[in-house]
Amino acid sequence: MISKFKWIDNGGSTSAKGFKACGVAAGIKANRTDMAMLLSDRASTCAGLFTSNRVAAAPVVLDRERAAKGKCRGVVVNAGCANACTGQKGFADAVEMARLAAETVGIPEEEMLVSSTGTIGRRLPMQRIADGIKLAKDALSYDGGAAAARAIMTTDTKPKEVALKVKIGGVDVTIGGMCKGAGMICPNLATMLCYITTDAAVGAKDLRAALKAAADNSFNRITVDGDQSTNDTLVVFANGAAGGKVLTPAQDDFALFTEALSEVAKALAMKIVEDGEGATKFVTVAVEKAASDEDALRAARAVANSPLFKTACFGADPNWGRVICAVGYSGAQVDDMKTEIYFDDVCVYDKGEVADATAQAKLAEVMAQRAFTVTVKLNLGEGADAVYTSDFSYDYVKINSEYTT
Amino acid sequence: MISKFKWIDNGGSTSAKGFKACGVAAGIKANRTDMAMLLSDRASTCAGLFTSNRVAAAPVVLDRERAAKGKCRGVVVNAGCANACTGQKGFADAVEMARLAAETVGIPEEEMLVSSTGTIGRRLPMQRIADGIKLAKDALSYDGGAAAARAIMTTDTKPKEVALKVKIGGVDVTIGGMCKGAGMICPNLATMLCYITTDAAVGAKDLRAALKAAADNSFNRITVDGDQSTNDTLVVFANGAAGGKVLTPAQDDFALFTEALSEVAKALAMKIVEDGEGATKFVTVAVEKAASDEDALRAARAVANSPLFKTACFGADPNWGRVICAVGYSGAQVDDMKTEIYFDDVCVYDKGEVADATAQAKLAEVMAQRAFTVTVKLNLGEGADAVYTSDFSYDYVKINSEYTT
Repeated sequence: MISKFKWIDNGGSTSAKGFKACGVAAGIKANRTDMAMLLSDRASTCAGLFTSNRVAAAPVVLDRERAAKGKCRGVVVNAGCANACTGQKGFADAVEMARLAAETVGIPEEEMLVSSTGTIGRRLPMQRIADGIKLAKDALSYDGGAAAARAIMTTDTKPKEVALKVKIGGVDVTIGGMCKGAGMICPNLATMLCYITTDAAVGAKDLRAALKAAADNSFNRITVDGDQSTNDTLVVFANGAAGGKVLTPAQDDFALFTEALSEVAKALAMKIVEDGEGATKFVTVAVEKAASDEDALRAARAVANSPLFKTACFGADPNWGRVICAVGYSGAQVDDMKTEIYFDDVCVYDKGEVADATAQAKLAEVMAQRAFTVTVKLNLGEGADAVYTSDFSYDYVKINSEYTT
Repeated sequence: MISKFKWIDNGGSTSAKGFKACGVAAGIKANRTDMAMLLSDRASTCAGLFTSNRVAAAPVVLDRERAAKGKCRGVVVNAGCANACTGQKGFADAVEMARLAAETVGIPEEEMLVSSTGTIGRRLPMQRIADGIKLAKDALSYDGGAAAARAIMTTDTKPKEVALKVKIGGVDVTIGGMCKGAGMICPNLATMLCYITTDAAVGAKDLRAALKAAADNSFNRITVDGDQSTNDTLVVFANGAAGGKVLTPAQDDFALFTEALSEVAKALAMKIVEDGEGATKFVTVAVEKAASDEDALRAARAVANSPLFKTACFGADPNWGRVICAVGYSGAQVDDMKTEIYFDDVCVYDKGEVADATAQAKLAEVMAQRAFTVTVKLNLGEGADAVYTSDFSYDYVKINSEYTT
């Protein structure tokens, strides 16, 4: 079977037509690029999803308002300072940063978004921001996606970008994007920033619906609602440069667009888990045959967020006791006399019976892998879901005890 | 002011009149004692609170039923095996373990409780349990509390026991107890076992009410409901050996009894936090001026449970950004423009303004202490509460990646 989606080698936020980007050194962080700009060379619709944390950073407050109007075409991002908990002055700084960027590249002020990531509680160094924006304007290019992806990194060990092509309504459409975020994400607070671009033509309201669906299948499977950083941001820009007709939900192709957008979001989300702070494992927690889909998600999240489970993964310990224990407190319906637990295809717990000793050698192989799947079959219904997580290592403690967020 | 309560040096579960205890080596764990017995030499009322985890271990299922009848006088406890997720056979093992203990010491079967702590998913070694119970019967003594406290340890680094005397209704009453539990507790799953004894005379129903109040002021401030191990158990026995009248809520003295019971429970709970796995810090998270008491507790728990906050404490980093971020996702009402945050008495965040640099030297002193308090003033109402937690260290990861629960 030929896939509907063609992944683009080294693709990213400038793979779609009409998008420029760059990464420059504004001097906010030492010895590295720390400011990115992403801009459509023509008018664009946009949609955004932001942190549900009641303490939202200044740029999030501003972007939420602007993205809701659906007409932004660019974003300027700085690392090194989150501009969170900085009061009215911090909000004014965010407005000014966006205004400077818009003025410098010559677009209406309200079409520019702004993001910040880094330490909470420090004011933006506005002179450096202003100087950086001038550099950024000159550096913008149609192949600047990689530089932009690098400039938005904080504790990430590598830049994260992907892009794919898909034929929609007879036209080749490209969807790509970049993101940063390397905390274990949930239950933690590492800021997740993600910018997706497409040359498809989609109205703002429909774009928002597609983004919500995409996030549900990707970022919402690695992070728990209500358990987010002050700065989390997910934005998509659609500039129509591919030349196709405007996609609407009434057309069959809209589902394909949403699916493609989900694929891009999922690929980016996976990169965040893989690059989890200090992570040595990539663990898929799948819950099947739950009483409901909601129960399955609840149970999967509880396991994926359990520090005891995560430390066991780091120790390559197939500790199913911690798995069933987390399911037990998740709020999901569970009966340990009906539950089965697998590490990849090795059954470790079967309805009150523990796997026999012959499974041990096989289990050691499973746990030695960088990636494995824990499957919990609750045998209470047809609900299913999965959550992706990383392990909890010495390096996680090291990174987070030494880094001031 | 002379305190109403007189703490007893080296007091514990056998400080109250009429209670015997012991710790013996049943051979379940290598080279140490691993079985404890605690027994009133006369009839006793009892009350128990147990894990809210939907996957409850066999002994918990049995004890919940027996304690509800209010007439138990003893408990037999083993370390090294949790007897959880062991099916019907495991339940039969728990029943048999209690029956053997009751028969050996000569009390009715239904007056004996049973607890297990250790690895999940393994059957109890019943021959060793039976042999251990015989040893335990011979070892029971009126000063066996210390040996019992040592025998129930798992990853604890020290035994935990306290006792106090209080004059109630003209009679000297003693309340004492022992506990084990050294996980970071919440959001983790280390089993907490706690046994409190008193020679006061209290009816079972009233004893249960007093225990609930005591737990609310102690263990429920270090652990989150619904986020508990399969085996968590808190039991109090009251045998009336002090010779006083039966205490009832209608008397003024009942409040004093409840207060004394709370003091004992709180002192034991504090010992668990202090002995947190790999802990180097004891942190009190106090939330004041919240919109409600519920909000204050919600916010305090979110901060106390945040791995990012805990790792910052380990790094002696006064990272208030992670504090306000956790409050933000706690569900509590919060307005960062009204919030103040203190580390001990040093203000680090004041309604949108960050503390000035002169606070830094003072802050370093605060963070260098083994124990400090983080206070969050939300300035939205009169709600207040506090939660106690430990930090998140390399040793936490080491202990939990190498230990099979």
